[in-house]
Amino acid sequence: MREGLLPPGRATAATQAEYDETHLRRLRLIRALTGARGLSVASAKHVLDAMTEHRTDLHQLLGIAFGIRPPAGVTPDAAEGGAPAGANPEAAALVDAMGWSVSEHNPARQAVDETLRTLRSLGIAYDWEALLPYAELAQRTARHDLEQLETVTDPMEKAERAVLLTFLLEPALMALRRLAQENESAARHGGGEHTST
Amino acid sequence: MREGLLPPGRATAATQAEYDETHLRRLRLIRALTGARGLSVASAKHVLDAMTEHRTDLHQLLGIAFGIRPPAGVTPDAAEGGAPAGANPEAAALVDAMGWSVSEHNPARQAVDETLRTLRSLGIAYDWEALLPYAELAQRTARHDLEQLETVTDPMEKAERAVLLTFLLEPALMALRRLAQENESAARHGGGEHTST
Repeated sequence: MREGLLPPGRATAATQAEYDETHLRRLRLIRALTGARGLSVASAKHVLDAMTEHRTDLHQLLGIAFGIRPPAGVTPDAAEGGAPAGANPEAAALVDAMGWSVSEHNPARQAVDETLRTLRSLGIAYDWEALLPYAELAQRTARHDLEQLETVTDPMEKAERAVLLTFLLEPALMALRRLAQENESAARHGGGEHTST
Repeated sequence: MREGLLPPGRATAATQAEYDETHLRRLRLIRALTGARGLSVASAKHVLDAMTEHRTDLHQLLGIAFGIRPPAGVTPDAAEGGAPAGANPEAAALVDAMGWSVSEHNPARQAVDETLRTLRSLGIAYDWEALLPYAELAQRTARHDLEQLETVTDPMEKAERAVLLTFLLEPALMALRRLAQENESAARHGGGEHTST
């Protein structure tokens, strides 16, 4: 088998036949964790081992894949790590208001509080309540995210897809928002000359 | 008046009184364009001049603020620039299917095609039709984005807020998706021990 964790492109059918499917999946997951989620190779292996250990508990498995529950021993890499409980009161209020079941240590809590602080420092009056309509839409997005995983039966393949769809779709989701903003601006304020060709 | 384009924090009421409100808004917009949108100071000034010129045409103004229509003379900075017409067929198909009115040169088109290519190169069968449910949600998000601007009457203040809310909210929107994913995973696969404390 080729050395290196990141084989270029898809392996051909002929090549695939030489390898065990589990082995290939393990490689792909490491590639997803190092590429899409930005972990070091050492951390990715650690995360993968924890996933394998919890392969029968899908919620735990997906939590590890999403970076919500980094297993003990994984160095907090960029954008990972979490925060001490109670450190992000605005995220806590939002999660509460939405009735969400979310771990205290989900690192996304911190991003919510940080964004709100930044907006206020720039003179925009914005608090967690202003985020509620976005939270409703995020809930629908997440529902669709998880629905897409239902067609996958193998737990490790599900975890791989969860990582890829969560992290790699982010730029596309933000791009869709920009496209929709232009359309919405055209509908609200547009003259004919500025609309689509 | 203090030198430097990026005065720290909010000016006090006493200090504000010394300056013209238009001047302060100009400074804040430059800060928004350089900080949140990542433009160089020279490009930000150029964009600002174009905004001022188009201040009576709100759609044009917001297009410039969002980075959809960079005015002539602005060097394409990071993540700006746009693509030649027809270069992104999957984004085109999606925009068409949604019935959106979106300029051929909106740079977000490129992000859509790039993401789909990346996903396929990693072995995930994904095309623009798979993005349609996300596009529906993006449309609602954009509607809410634009609604929030309705309360602002001054066009330049509206443009400033458009820049800040578009770019600075991105990490919070992605964080809300992660929080909602954990909640959705808990609802679908979760045992009691993994849910919120």
